[in-house]
Amino acid sequence: MPVKLDTSYLNKFIKQHEYSQIQPLVKMAHDILQYKSENDRTAFTGWVDLPHNQDKKELEKIKSAAQKIQENSQVLIVIGIGGSYLGARAIIEFLKSNNYNLLPKDTPDIFFVGNNLSASYMQEILKICENKNVSINVISKSGTTAEPAVAFRIFREFLENKYGKANARDRIYCTTNIRSGELKELADKNGYETFIIPDNISGRFSAFTPAGLLPIAVAGVDIDRLLYGAKSAQDALMHEDINKNDCYKYAAIRRLLYNKGKEIEILETYEPRMHMFSEWFKQLFGESEAKDGKGIFPTSLDFTTDLHSMGQLLQSGKKNLFETVLLVKDPGNDIRIPYFPEDTDKLNYLHDKTVSFVNSQAALGTILAHTDGDIPNIILEISHFAAEEIGYLIYFFEKACAISCYMLGVNPFDQPGVEFYKKNMLNLLGKPK
Amino acid sequence: MPVKLDTSYLNKFIKQHEYSQIQPLVKMAHDILQYKSENDRTAFTGWVDLPHNQDKKELEKIKSAAQKIQENSQVLIVIGIGGSYLGARAIIEFLKSNNYNLLPKDTPDIFFVGNNLSASYMQEILKICENKNVSINVISKSGTTAEPAVAFRIFREFLENKYGKANARDRIYCTTNIRSGELKELADKNGYETFIIPDNISGRFSAFTPAGLLPIAVAGVDIDRLLYGAKSAQDALMHEDINKNDCYKYAAIRRLLYNKGKEIEILETYEPRMHMFSEWFKQLFGESEAKDGKGIFPTSLDFTTDLHSMGQLLQSGKKNLFETVLLVKDPGNDIRIPYFPEDTDKLNYLHDKTVSFVNSQAALGTILAHTDGDIPNIILEISHFAAEEIGYLIYFFEKACAISCYMLGVNPFDQPGVEFYKKNMLNLLGKPK
Repeated sequence: MPVKLDTSYLNKFIKQHEYSQIQPLVKMAHDILQYKSENDRTAFTGWVDLPHNQDKKELEKIKSAAQKIQENSQVLIVIGIGGSYLGARAIIEFLKSNNYNLLPKDTPDIFFVGNNLSASYMQEILKICENKNVSINVISKSGTTAEPAVAFRIFREFLENKYGKANARDRIYCTTNIRSGELKELADKNGYETFIIPDNISGRFSAFTPAGLLPIAVAGVDIDRLLYGAKSAQDALMHEDINKNDCYKYAAIRRLLYNKGKEIEILETYEPRMHMFSEWFKQLFGESEAKDGKGIFPTSLDFTTDLHSMGQLLQSGKKNLFETVLLVKDPGNDIRIPYFPEDTDKLNYLHDKTVSFVNSQAALGTILAHTDGDIPNIILEISHFAAEEIGYLIYFFEKACAISCYMLGVNPFDQPGVEFYKKNMLNLLGKPK
Repeated sequence: MPVKLDTSYLNKFIKQHEYSQIQPLVKMAHDILQYKSENDRTAFTGWVDLPHNQDKKELEKIKSAAQKIQENSQVLIVIGIGGSYLGARAIIEFLKSNNYNLLPKDTPDIFFVGNNLSASYMQEILKICENKNVSINVISKSGTTAEPAVAFRIFREFLENKYGKANARDRIYCTTNIRSGELKELADKNGYETFIIPDNISGRFSAFTPAGLLPIAVAGVDIDRLLYGAKSAQDALMHEDINKNDCYKYAAIRRLLYNKGKEIEILETYEPRMHMFSEWFKQLFGESEAKDGKGIFPTSLDFTTDLHSMGQLLQSGKKNLFETVLLVKDPGNDIRIPYFPEDTDKLNYLHDKTVSFVNSQAALGTILAHTDGDIPNIILEISHFAAEEIGYLIYFFEKACAISCYMLGVNPFDQPGVEFYKKNMLNLLGKPK
């Protein structure tokens, strides 16, 4: 289950003594995170202990609601933006498929709305829902973020027209803050079932709160196994010595490379079902680290697809970047390459090989080519597509992100820059003060 | 139909005299492209005259084949990677939907395979095809690129098992080079219908060849209207003066910003159906421009979605980037925001407004916020989602890309860097010499 870090392709870029030199900075970051998580309830570090610190009653409520939705709905509409949908969507696609909605299955289709302001997009989902039984899970800490609030009005109206106000009530689930917030008020007033995101956890660290867990459970994922993986990571990734903690070592490498002018980090995966995991990763690092004119620009590529679009740039463009390659040792569902007596495409030499084998050699070939091309390659590997694996992986990146940020001297848990466009938009829309 | 360029948010970053100073470089790039396209058949500039220079017989063949596939197939499998699928997929999603396969319609589902080496991904598509009538369009200039060659073996075997070898023949369409190439040889040997990609057009400039046109026609797009838009662009974007040619002015702005240390270009859109257009854009610029240690890093964001992941970085991170915002004036399919007497989410002030209006104000608010945040914003606008609009837009970017490259002193039409990983992979796989 552990995420394995392979630094053997970095020797050209980072010398052994540099790891020792950065160790004190790692320890400082570790100490800050420990102190904050133990002593400061306002520091948004609730995610640190969350795997072991789950509310058992809330978990049971999630499982019951998921079962009810599975029984009475063919479609679940999940309304949320940013951290209120990326964790759930990343985990569902990772474990089920990026084509989840197109595949035959015994769990509901799941559509994510309220993460954009596209009328076409919403019209299409409404059309798909027309002759189906539908439930809604609206996820918003405040309840006033424009995208989910607009979508909730539209889909709530759809549901009330379809079932009547009283029966629609039984199909609406609100995931929100415990204390205040407009969504909580609305839910209480209308009698919607509610789930609580703890106050001291911000959106991008909320995959293991009900924000992630309810949609994930509806998709048929065993959330106990998911949390088992997260717990294992919480236990394993405590050591302050980078030689005994791959999570901290990955954070240290990011800092060392950034100090050498590597300003772009590309997360690379080789399976389409991992695409949304990369989107989750980008939010995690982009919002946490990019502050005060500092921070790595996180981006992602889906290989081998994007080797045929961005491969040229990587090999021969500016060397202001590094690659973090996330491999899966045994991706499963393998296919043997068919034999054809005529060999015009000259592939018969592969006829006793499998597609996954070819994929793994493409990955290795790319790592070698790009290392030759002077791009630092960090290799991370998990063993297969399973709930405990992604549980561990999510926690690994969350902690690496927090440590990275403290090493850079920025607060990982605020996002002051996100407010500017919101403020402008609300002014332009003429929102009453 | 013209793509409108708005430079009013750039005044802070580019002074008027800089535009005049760069004009001679634009003219030089224009002259090189003109000379090459008129005199050098080996220069891969066949795309320059392609809109007006279509092979009428080939177009008729494409329309007949598309009609046949629409009549006898519920699924079209398009096999291709990089330039052999991005144009078709970008145009289909732009005009139909990014949820095209999920929507009720009277044209076949279209799945793109052979653009990765994921066994899971292929297994899923095979499963979806099980009880459906299927045709295949395999697109490969050479026929030996690993990803499409492997996928073609697997899907050809599926088709031959389903229909028998003789009947499968009628459901396989090959788009390839006229002269040589393994795919041409295989098609001739087996009697598959073939379509020709002209030799002097490379993959990323091939949207208006049969590589793009056949799948696009199968999706029910009027390819004459698409080509009408491209022809209009070919006619309109000839003037060497940047004050009379927005395409060249956009190219000039890219160079000016790059010279000022803006090393990342982010293409931003506000409708999910434009996502694949951004992928096409990234291949176009990434493969054409990033050479000899030079070139802008092209990336993309889907707004407002990604404002909640990368917005923080844009507002407050490093200022090594600029934004190219691609707006659609009238996106259509609009939805009025419902009124609820209780106003807990405080949105009733918007109840006579539409979703697209809110989206447009989000865009404007973001442009203002990011300009304040010291990021150059280039604004491009098209009028609506129509075949002639995307035809014009594709040509606009193709020509801007070529001019950008010549201004930077790189050859837009080769991609030497892509070969390294392929060579490594084939060595690792033990391909016989």
